[in-house]
Amino acid sequence: MDAAAAVVAESGLAAVTMSKIAERTGTGRATLYKYFADVDAVLSAWHERQITGHLHHLAEIRDHAAGPGARLAAVLAAYAQILAHHPGGAIAAGLHRGEHTVDAQQRLHEFVRDLLTDAAGAGEIRDDATADELTRYVLHAISAAEGLDSPAAVRRLVAIILTGLEPQR
Amino acid sequence: MDAAAAVVAESGLAAVTMSKIAERTGTGRATLYKYFADVDAVLSAWHERQITGHLHHLAEIRDHAAGPGARLAAVLAAYAQILAHHPGGAIAAGLHRGEHTVDAQQRLHEFVRDLLTDAAGAGEIRDDATADELTRYVLHAISAAEGLDSPAAVRRLVAIILTGLEPQR
Repeated sequence: MDAAAAVVAESGLAAVTMSKIAERTGTGRATLYKYFADVDAVLSAWHERQITGHLHHLAEIRDHAAGPGARLAAVLAAYAQILAHHPGGAIAAGLHRGEHTVDAQQRLHEFVRDLLTDAAGAGEIRDDATADELTRYVLHAISAAEGLDSPAAVRRLVAIILTGLEPQR
Repeated sequence: MDAAAAVVAESGLAAVTMSKIAERTGTGRATLYKYFADVDAVLSAWHERQITGHLHHLAEIRDHAAGPGARLAAVLAAYAQILAHHPGGAIAAGLHRGEHTVDAQQRLHEFVRDLLTDAAGAGEIRDDATADELTRYVLHAISAAEGLDSPAAVRRLVAIILTGLEPQR
């Protein structure tokens, strides 16, 4: 999985082949095919592993903040920092929607949606769009953090996203 | 280009090959290779053609609105509708950064950044982030419109994005 991600980072998604992945790991192609049916399967598994790790981290952040608004802000700040240091979320968008990827994306979506639902229930965010719509907005906007060098720029991005969520008169 | 885009839409980016593109167009692979060096070249050209067309349309929208804030709102609404009806912008994120793609993305970025710079100069949007940062926010957030069925949902998304840009006390 790491080898596939490295090839993507260096040469782009279209350049990844089972041969290149095998070469990079020092494994034979036959061995690689025992575990993964194709490139999509490798990248989907890599992506799922990434998201699972990130969700554990974000759940800890959530559980250490008090109140729905503070929890939302703390999680978005942490997730933006993750994206800044682990670019690659964008890769997932180009993948054929395998079950693993859909599942991982879905868990991330639900995690953020639950935070937004709680914050809306407490009147701390706008209520003129559905929780699913607000979640789509948040997850797309926050992907702008990918590859941002400056922690201050990441913080400004999160502040802008949170402004977008503010209750409307 | 259309054939390549159709294969991506059906089977995902990793599934596109020169053979599949040739097959779909009824062209020989040798002929295809006369015009494009590889899959990346086909997809980059397709993407550049899309963005060029969209920018012409958006420039007309801009020139029919009065005032920096209204121009920004009109263009974002039009661009969100384009994304809702022409999903595929996400494909570009997975492409190896070819010159054409960078150029097209850059033109879109500059187009939006000019609108934001004008609006900031008129005090109609926040000034606590750079125009480039605001542009990244807008272009990532607005990609949430891709594939949205409901025009009302697209309008709500644009309203949320514009709220994020509002001047801060």
